[in-house]
Amino acid sequence: MTKTIILKQRPQGKPTLSDFKIISEDTDLIIKDGELSLETLYVSVDPYLRGRMSDAKSYVEPFKLNQPIHSGSIAKVMDSKNDKFKKGDYVSGMIDWKTKQISNGEGLTKVDASKADLSAYLGVLGMTGLTAYTGLTQIGKPKKGETLVVSGAAGAVGSIVGQIGKILGLKVIGIAGTDSKVDMLKSKFGFDEGINYKTTKDMKAAIAEAAPDGVDVYFDNVGGEISDAILFNINRFARTVNCGAIAVYNETELPTSVSVRPFLIKKSALMQGFIVSNFEDKFPEAINQLSSWLAEKKLTYEETIVEGFENIPQAFIDLFEGKNKGKMIVKV
Amino acid sequence: MTKTIILKQRPQGKPTLSDFKIISEDTDLIIKDGELSLETLYVSVDPYLRGRMSDAKSYVEPFKLNQPIHSGSIAKVMDSKNDKFKKGDYVSGMIDWKTKQISNGEGLTKVDASKADLSAYLGVLGMTGLTAYTGLTQIGKPKKGETLVVSGAAGAVGSIVGQIGKILGLKVIGIAGTDSKVDMLKSKFGFDEGINYKTTKDMKAAIAEAAPDGVDVYFDNVGGEISDAILFNINRFARTVNCGAIAVYNETELPTSVSVRPFLIKKSALMQGFIVSNFEDKFPEAINQLSSWLAEKKLTYEETIVEGFENIPQAFIDLFEGKNKGKMIVKV
Repeated sequence: MTKTIILKQRPQGKPTLSDFKIISEDTDLIIKDGELSLETLYVSVDPYLRGRMSDAKSYVEPFKLNQPIHSGSIAKVMDSKNDKFKKGDYVSGMIDWKTKQISNGEGLTKVDASKADLSAYLGVLGMTGLTAYTGLTQIGKPKKGETLVVSGAAGAVGSIVGQIGKILGLKVIGIAGTDSKVDMLKSKFGFDEGINYKTTKDMKAAIAEAAPDGVDVYFDNVGGEISDAILFNINRFARTVNCGAIAVYNETELPTSVSVRPFLIKKSALMQGFIVSNFEDKFPEAINQLSSWLAEKKLTYEETIVEGFENIPQAFIDLFEGKNKGKMIVKV
Repeated sequence: MTKTIILKQRPQGKPTLSDFKIISEDTDLIIKDGELSLETLYVSVDPYLRGRMSDAKSYVEPFKLNQPIHSGSIAKVMDSKNDKFKKGDYVSGMIDWKTKQISNGEGLTKVDASKADLSAYLGVLGMTGLTAYTGLTQIGKPKKGETLVVSGAAGAVGSIVGQIGKILGLKVIGIAGTDSKVDMLKSKFGFDEGINYKTTKDMKAAIAEAAPDGVDVYFDNVGGEISDAILFNINRFARTVNCGAIAVYNETELPTSVSVRPFLIKKSALMQGFIVSNFEDKFPEAINQLSSWLAEKKLTYEETIVEGFENIPQAFIDLFEGKNKGKMIVKV
């Protein structure tokens, strides 16, 4: 029996369970030359998937209705007629939300289960870690002694960004939405300061207090009003890394905000959006650096693992409620 | 008799004549060793001066109340006890709005009246040209075949930006506020397309039509709704050069706009503000290049010359009504 999750309808605003459908069917996985069969072990759910569920023009194709959704996943090779993979290998790649499937091997990478937990390859050693590392270093260009603010700081990307900031010698301030997340920023990830935006009335003042020397680098995972408040505290030549806008993914109307342009002009400041694939040429350097830091225990990570294939849609929805700490992963 | 223009009160919103005061007084210009006396010939009025009339924190000190305003000007040396300058020299620099004054020579540069009209040193060979050249090349990074949109295109900076774009092999679209300005963009400055934003109902559609391949570089001299409309038409890896925000300089409340962040993320796009002094190290290259293009007649410029020292405040106010074509200069 193979289970598949398809996109039944495009979410309006916040996604709901009725946007998805789980199908069960008997299938024989008979592979041809060059193919391999996969059993899915871990599935990553990420905020950016919300964008692909809309049919708006974006940097990647929207998901098709009534077709399986796919995301970064880890699978075990059950059988192979492909020279590059053998039975028992573990692989990562963008694969369909199916318990079992056939692949031609394209886009799959072998991962080493002896070097790190398999789920780490969806997080700190996967797209999450690459996003944090390349966005921060290539756009944020952090310099020792500067001040870095991270929004969505307890999230998968944010918690790695903050730790890299500390490794590179910056003062690091994290913004998150619960007191326990804020505690974790400081106790587990070594942030200097944490701000709970839900219990803080005046974010502009709170940031000014936490960053008395002003903000040099802002790694923005959320957008929205939090990011407006940062603008009032940026220094000359500040860099804002626009990584995600989770606060606005669900809005069906175009959001408005304080106009950033006068701030950018006054401070000769930069804002730049990116997706991780822009920096593919930096991936080997990034993986190498992240693995070393992980081995040296300079880098730690948090993950929220939800059990059960059929819970993928709920785990995805929970992202927008901030129910995850760190990377949200479903164990199949 | 020396006339001086002081800042009487800080403008609220749009500046008015009552924000300024003209003082006449008899003064003897007696110079000491190292000093020189100047007779002001041409005074540049520029939108950025509005920013300095507020007491908001910015990249430069606000003008002081009841003190002379200063801006880029050309003066003739009447007498000199400074080794670097002699009687009869022409100089450019940031000098007070006074018909005559004493200087210690700091910040003054000799200009050559035989190579170009004196007023050109306030425009294409002055801060205006440097702003256009450095902003476009250092932030816009234009590539042959790309599409460049310029707002405030008939203005001093905008008209030079567009011409440089054409010299570098881009498709150039200008946005301006009257039909005669739009005509001038095409007939005088060689722009490919012009859009009158005051008579265009759907700017988003008009830009899409003028730029069927999308917008790669946007040189933004105005901010406001025009710039929001550009966002919908930017290409992947687009660069927005935030040079000025004339549409918002006069607002006493912080302006809001369509949130730029989702666009920057979707398109991996960049926005960066600057002031010309950020690129001081590029000035020799810029002056050299602009002079060559001027000599080769590849570059032309428009200026609006208002006569009479006492008309400086009105000329400044007229900037915000778009009454100038090209650089606005007062001939004393």
